[in-house]
Amino acid sequence: MTVLKEVEKNYGQLKLYINGEWVESESADIYDSVNPATGETIATFPSATEAEVQQAIESAQSALQTWKTVPLRDKARYLFDLRGKFEEHFDMLCRVLVQDHGRTMGEAVGTLRRCIENIESACSALLLLTKGDYINELARTIDQTLYMEPRGVFLIVTPNNIPMHAWSSYVPYAIASGCPVIVSPSKDDPVCLKAIFEVAAEVKGFPPGLMNLVYGGRNINNMILEHPHVKGVGFIGSTHVGLKLFEQAGRLGKEASINGNGKNHVVLMPDADFDSAVSGLLRGCYGMAGQRCLGADNILVIGDGYDRFKDAFVKASAEMKMGYGLDDTTELGPLVSERGRQNILDFIEKGINEGADLILDGRDPRVDRCEKGFFVGPTIFENVDADMYIAREESFGPVANLMKVADLDEAIDLINNKDDYGHSACIFTKSGTSARKFTKQVDVGNIGINVAVPQPYAFFPLGSKNASAQGCAKSRIDSMRLFLDQKTITERWV
Amino acid sequence: MTVLKEVEKNYGQLKLYINGEWVESESADIYDSVNPATGETIATFPSATEAEVQQAIESAQSALQTWKTVPLRDKARYLFDLRGKFEEHFDMLCRVLVQDHGRTMGEAVGTLRRCIENIESACSALLLLTKGDYINELARTIDQTLYMEPRGVFLIVTPNNIPMHAWSSYVPYAIASGCPVIVSPSKDDPVCLKAIFEVAAEVKGFPPGLMNLVYGGRNINNMILEHPHVKGVGFIGSTHVGLKLFEQAGRLGKEASINGNGKNHVVLMPDADFDSAVSGLLRGCYGMAGQRCLGADNILVIGDGYDRFKDAFVKASAEMKMGYGLDDTTELGPLVSERGRQNILDFIEKGINEGADLILDGRDPRVDRCEKGFFVGPTIFENVDADMYIAREESFGPVANLMKVADLDEAIDLINNKDDYGHSACIFTKSGTSARKFTKQVDVGNIGINVAVPQPYAFFPLGSKNASAQGCAKSRIDSMRLFLDQKTITERWV
Amino acid sequence: MTVLKEVEKNYGQLKLYINGEWVESESADIYDSVNPATGETIATFPSATEAEVQQAIESAQSALQTWKTVPLRDKARYLFDLRGKFEEHFDMLCRVLVQDHGRTMGEAVGTLRRCIENIESACSALLLLTKGDYINELARTIDQTLYMEPRGVFLIVTPNNIPMHAWSSYVPYAIASGCPVIVSPSKDDPVCLKAIFEVAAEVKGFPPGLMNLVYGGRNINNMILEHPHVKGVGFIGSTHVGLKLFEQAGRLGKEASINGNGKNHVVLMPDADFDSAVSGLLRGCYGMAGQRCLGADNILVIGDGYDRFKDAFVKASAEMKMGYGLDDTTELGPLVSERGRQNILDFIEKGINEGADLILDGRDPRVDRCEKGFFVGPTIFENVDADMYIAREESFGPVANLMKVADLDEAIDLINNKDDYGHSACIFTKSGTSARKFTKQVDVGNIGINVAVPQPYAFFPLGSKNASAQGCAKSRIDSMRLFLDQKTITERWV
Amino acid sequence: MTVLKEVEKNYGQLKLYINGEWVESESADIYDSVNPATGETIATFPSATEAEVQQAIESAQSALQTWKTVPLRDKARYLFDLRGKFEEHFDMLCRVLVQDHGRTMGEAVGTLRRCIENIESACSALLLLTKGDYINELARTIDQTLYMEPRGVFLIVTPNNIPMHAWSSYVPYAIASGCPVIVSPSKDDPVCLKAIFEVAAEVKGFPPGLMNLVYGGRNINNMILEHPHVKGVGFIGSTHVGLKLFEQAGRLGKEASINGNGKNHVVLMPDADFDSAVSGLLRGCYGMAGQRCLGADNILVIGDGYDRFKDAFVKASAEMKMGYGLDDTTELGPLVSERGRQNILDFIEKGINEGADLILDGRDPRVDRCEKGFFVGPTIFENVDADMYIAREESFGPVANLMKVADLDEAIDLINNKDDYGHSACIFTKSGTSARKFTKQVDVGNIGINVAVPQPYAFFPLGSKNASAQGCAKSRIDSMRLFLDQKTITERWV
Repeated sequence: MTVLKEVEKNYGQLKLYINGEWVESESADIYDSVNPATGETIATFPSATEAEVQQAIESAQSALQTWKTVPLRDKARYLFDLRGKFEEHFDMLCRVLVQDHGRTMGEAVGTLRRCIENIESACSALLLLTKGDYINELARTIDQTLYMEPRGVFLIVTPNNIPMHAWSSYVPYAIASGCPVIVSPSKDDPVCLKAIFEVAAEVKGFPPGLMNLVYGGRNINNMILEHPHVKGVGFIGSTHVGLKLFEQAGRLGKEASINGNGKNHVVLMPDADFDSAVSGLLRGCYGMAGQRCLGADNILVIGDGYDRFKDAFVKASAEMKMGYGLDDTTELGPLVSERGRQNILDFIEKGINEGADLILDGRDPRVDRCEKGFFVGPTIFENVDADMYIAREESFGPVANLMKVADLDEAIDLINNKDDYGHSACIFTKSGTSARKFTKQVDVGNIGINVAVPQPYAFFPLGSKNASAQGCAKSRIDSMRLFLDQKTITERWV
Repeated sequence: MTVLKEVEKNYGQLKLYINGEWVESESADIYDSVNPATGETIATFPSATEAEVQQAIESAQSALQTWKTVPLRDKARYLFDLRGKFEEHFDMLCRVLVQDHGRTMGEAVGTLRRCIENIESACSALLLLTKGDYINELARTIDQTLYMEPRGVFLIVTPNNIPMHAWSSYVPYAIASGCPVIVSPSKDDPVCLKAIFEVAAEVKGFPPGLMNLVYGGRNINNMILEHPHVKGVGFIGSTHVGLKLFEQAGRLGKEASINGNGKNHVVLMPDADFDSAVSGLLRGCYGMAGQRCLGADNILVIGDGYDRFKDAFVKASAEMKMGYGLDDTTELGPLVSERGRQNILDFIEKGINEGADLILDGRDPRVDRCEKGFFVGPTIFENVDADMYIAREESFGPVANLMKVADLDEAIDLINNKDDYGHSACIFTKSGTSARKFTKQVDVGNIGINVAVPQPYAFFPLGSKNASAQGCAKSRIDSMRLFLDQKTITERWV
Repeated sequence: MTVLKEVEKNYGQLKLYINGEWVESESADIYDSVNPATGETIATFPSATEAEVQQAIESAQSALQTWKTVPLRDKARYLFDLRGKFEEHFDMLCRVLVQDHGRTMGEAVGTLRRCIENIESACSALLLLTKGDYINELARTIDQTLYMEPRGVFLIVTPNNIPMHAWSSYVPYAIASGCPVIVSPSKDDPVCLKAIFEVAAEVKGFPPGLMNLVYGGRNINNMILEHPHVKGVGFIGSTHVGLKLFEQAGRLGKEASINGNGKNHVVLMPDADFDSAVSGLLRGCYGMAGQRCLGADNILVIGDGYDRFKDAFVKASAEMKMGYGLDDTTELGPLVSERGRQNILDFIEKGINEGADLILDGRDPRVDRCEKGFFVGPTIFENVDADMYIAREESFGPVANLMKVADLDEAIDLINNKDDYGHSACIFTKSGTSARKFTKQVDVGNIGINVAVPQPYAFFPLGSKNASAQGCAKSRIDSMRLFLDQKTITERWV
Repeated sequence: MTVLKEVEKNYGQLKLYINGEWVESESADIYDSVNPATGETIATFPSATEAEVQQAIESAQSALQTWKTVPLRDKARYLFDLRGKFEEHFDMLCRVLVQDHGRTMGEAVGTLRRCIENIESACSALLLLTKGDYINELARTIDQTLYMEPRGVFLIVTPNNIPMHAWSSYVPYAIASGCPVIVSPSKDDPVCLKAIFEVAAEVKGFPPGLMNLVYGGRNINNMILEHPHVKGVGFIGSTHVGLKLFEQAGRLGKEASINGNGKNHVVLMPDADFDSAVSGLLRGCYGMAGQRCLGADNILVIGDGYDRFKDAFVKASAEMKMGYGLDDTTELGPLVSERGRQNILDFIEKGINEGADLILDGRDPRVDRCEKGFFVGPTIFENVDADMYIAREESFGPVANLMKVADLDEAIDLINNKDDYGHSACIFTKSGTSARKFTKQVDVGNIGINVAVPQPYAFFPLGSKNASAQGCAKSRIDSMRLFLDQKTITERWV
């Protein structure tokens, strides 16, 4: 067993990042940031004052004009440099993520690679997707050009489960598009954003105000979006909060790209490779302690193999080793917060009350050396009815529901009729025909075939649907559409 | 002088088009459609009942499923056939547009060509823009695919000034994307939509319910957008109404593409070719009787040439021949409605009261053989201050404001600070440097250089900005983004 | 049984189409065009004289300049009109194809739909792929534009097996790109091209010289390609002739897109649906009397099912009804020429001599009412060794080879090592894993899964490889790259 | 004056880079590499033996298979890392380029930035341009996919004038496409390539054999291209040699992308800003000592300003400071080789003999501290006739021809009729109309407006035409088309 060192034991009080400088807040409204594996406070941070928020917006607006005058070839250079800085500080960022959010080190490495892929994708987007179009001789003596302009300043809201990944899902693209941002992170893991901003601040060439960081969460989000300089919002978080921002944007005539909750199904066909399915589902159900939007929730087992699968899955689940992510033998970390842990416990309670059978109970795990951590162990229900609350709402924890279904048609019907969300659905099968049918008929945004977490690459949008996503520009490379506006030029020179 | 025949003298009571059939409405709420050049009623039409609207939505939802199963190669065939039908009925459509809206025949021909270009553009979009992406070996043994699915049923709202063009700016693209539509036209020229639907109905292969037509205007728009089957709205009309729909869509978590009013500026540099500018401005200020979103409103003249330009422009304006569009000598048609005419008269009154000088008064024109038509002649103000109401709000009639400005910088400042809208701005100059400066610095969506109406081609969006447009997917080919949703597939076959 | 009427019994002597006019050749070198089902001469045609070829080239060069000045929106209109003309004359074109080439009516209908799809695809390419790119502020004060220009006049060579389809694989794209063409068809079915040119001539708007038709085949191809005005060649035909043209183009510094022969394999996995495979293979092996580049040649059967498949396939093959394509019960037409028939007979003889077992012999078929036609019936070999001539060279007739292989790896090895060509390879299986493995590992250009003729859609290139294709721009939409050249503009206006 | 240190005084005998290792050649055929500013030998290098060339090809072929199995996300990571390595060694690479080629330090910095931009562009191309296309339900139950495969091993030939830039114009794109390369550099500056390969070798993840470096020039190029594993060639160099490779590729059925000589014109309109033109032309005519394909050759002056321009240009030319590029006051470096210098001297002699007037003679410059360098000073002819040898062939040295022309039409005619090449043409003017006319009518590939070296950005092709370029895939991002082949998959799962 190797135990990695923490980056720092305590970060003290976090500063805001406004107009290219680290600024001590004048706020009296101070919060704690807690390491969820140890329960220790690792930083305190302020909820930014209204004046500070205004300064951030003004500096962003000013950066909009400066950044516009930077030639494309230089913008590209700085964004590629940002990618280099992330490689340089890769290990530090991973360890901060483990410490502040509760991931395992392996999960953190995966996350940071995904973050870098987003920066790489944004570099590519800057070069290849900000180009305009040109038509020679559209009409007699008339040429026409379409080119792209940044829409303006944007609010970017990051959630507690993927603080760094969410940053990377919008911010590099905003910069590539020419749009300065105000980043407003969740109050559960602010150190993650601080670390990212420190890395980004090392890049020479970004004008002050291009990226701003203000803590405060929901308190300040609405205030920011209301400001006339702010042209829209990119949000990853709960459907509940997201829909409110979408409504606010609608009222203000602004743009919004919203990513919310999900409730994801995995179908096991009788011809599936069960070993592969079990191993995929451990990652799908318990990865990031179940706090991921594309994770697996309801496992629909078709046919006779139910008992065989159940035995294997319960056994493997029960054996997962919980602990602090910096310990390299840890397979499952804590929930991000005590509130998060309480929510799961309530969720499990609700399932029991609804009549589902709890066949693996993770509510009171014993985790050596992490007695004060916010842990919940792998938890499995069976005999879950499709209409139960636990079958329809996201647990946001390491909870799996086993459900028997008669055949593929029934599974597809269940998903299409009972899943109001639309993040993902997966199937394990050897049959090309079953896979195609599932793909075409299931009405969610991300389909997995023989994988349990169908995560799209950075240059694909997270194609989520229905209650899981609003706004016609999605995250990742698709957000270029959120940030870029179009201008046409009709020229006649005779 | 040639006078073309009207298509029909009177179309009787118009029917709704629901589920592939012409349906007589049960509504008691009946309106007149009037030929604005003659004042004669040419049709009556009902405001659809709630039940009829529901039927339209249900039939559209059913067409969504049917149309999905039609192979791409067949969809393409039918859409190309639709283009052929428009060519076949080209002349009829032009004459209906003249008769119902009040355009001149020349304007109608131009409009119909633009409509066909939209269908051509939608054909191309269907073939080339609905394709998904495929990544081979994204990760070890994993391939990934992104493909497009129709979002669902859409409401399309068409305005009174460009009834056919607005239809073509959304509907062919909706069909290409797989989305059925409910078209809700303005109550001022419903015969235009009836004519288009008759032409479209001739195409073999479109499933019933793919395109529905219900009259009723604002009465029914909100009702349609509220329905759970309806996933969004494409709207062309007033900013006032558009913003309300955008807010409604925000509240409902739905998509909206909104195009509203504008107030467009044309700058004349001292080095401009004044003959060319005058001739362009006659079209820009008075084309479609001033009822076009990209038309010219405020003419900013720089330098000594002001008087020379003014004399030439007033003279040419005064000579424009008004009349019925089917008379081939007509250069300027009526306003689309008596209400429209009243609004212009009020607008002119307001300008006089604000202290602008009315140097050409079109309020009481004499139009032979069209005594009951809704005519207003070319109207020109000078000494217009940039803060006056008439300088900042759209007249929606044949009204031009002459304004002197000192230099290009002042002109750009004026446009950027006084135009809350963002449709278009034009410059007449011989200098490449002035043209580039204007293009880059003016904050509107459509720039014209030595043209007075910078209309983008069908496969460019109408790149309007600020108060003129909401929603990150715009009209024309850009609306593919409104109608198409994305789905990712992550596959692992080992 | 319905027998359709021939378009005409005899077309007399065909004219050349030069500079927008039908021109009687002064050549004394006259050939016959024969209906291969009846053996009757249906037309005579000249091999164009050198002077006539020069005129065609000059008129094309002149059209290059004219066509350049036609605005994009008009070019689009004419190309869409061309598509309409093909729909209008659809039935005539099908019947000419049956009469001149020997297809069945069903095959002709399929072919003509594919031709129209190529025109549709070219329409789309004109609108969406001829656009240039624009970069705003690439460097300080510098903008950059890339736009497309036609390369110049091109030679298009069409083969005897797909005279119309080959035309559609290059010519509409050449026109969309702005490049005039000289079409040089095979001497076996010249009436097909005459019919197409008559249809195209009905389009108003194409300048004279945009499309020229000269008969003469190889006699004149080299002469045309040698001319300085001619910038390259698009060729579909034999690998032997294609490679010579490619070499000539290389020597001249010109562009070439060459499509040649193939030898295609179909793998039947033990889990395949044999009924579906047999039905697919009838079309794959005998469609167009085996004269298609993506048709099936070698059938590799894996596992125990060999005898079951063989029995079913031989039985179904033997029952195919031969006859004149205009008879609607005909399932299999003649070879395109007596020479073609002789080649197959020689091919079969060679197979027998090599030691393969002829288990269905189609060499002397009895075809009622077509006693003089060039028929060969379905012919099947078994015990074919992978190194035999008949296993490695294209028969260009209705000949199938049955071969047993041990497993999928052996099948893939055989294809990759014995197929010097690279048109296509197919697999019939229910397994997603087998399908993916086959797709990724087989080194040919077009893979089929559970289909026997993996024909790409018009807006995909015919992705053939190795000896089957030369030139980095392929046919169909990919040929836009052949025809279009690029120009950059670097602008600085200060 | 600052004089930068040389990287090393002498590099000894250079090694080959084969299969990921630096290999001492067994060749007895050894050449010198000379610092052209000092005349000192800085390295010796072998002409690789046939066996060594074979090893390079074999190792490349083996890398083809390995690199194919590396997931796209990892390929991207390594290519972005390569970009980082170039930034890290930026200064070293600049100084090697100065030392081995003779550039000034300022030119070297510019070149290296362009090289990095090519890597950035290739990174983007890997992510966004290697994706395939997917069509859902093309025909009933049939989906179709197009994806990209590397064509195989390529020969890349780099010239003596832009050794590093040429590497970057093909190699990063080859790697992004999956194609291993054999790089064969000019014998004039081999240390440049050695330095690049050392930098690239630091990237972890590239398989051995992906990039190979063999010295020998023309001796080995044909041998490499002839090898069956080698699928084509990317070449930058002389038209003479390029056309031979193009012919060879044609004979072999392989792909070639060829960039050759040019003869570029700059037009000065009477309304041009002469100061800006003179300053641009100093760079255009003498930058890289005139050894650049887009540099300026013939200056066409229109109108009365000729004498004024001439005086200013001659004076500024005469004042340019020659010297060793590592001296930071140097404005003009030496020719790359003694042979290069002799060629210019012959060229100038020819001009004098043809009757042109030599008004600035750079043949015998005095360059302090560089007495043995290969220097030629700025040289200007006037009264040059458009048909003279010096007006039609590239000097490849710091030679400018002044020519008077009557008007823009004459200038355009001259360029279109006398320039057999097609690299570039520039105009200096204030008029948008003159600029557009020039852009549209001049038949070369790269147009400059108010710039003298219209160099396209990395993600634009060098759009050269006519004798300057062969092959339908050009360099830079366009070379993705050279390296990538296409494969279609037609799937039916029912």
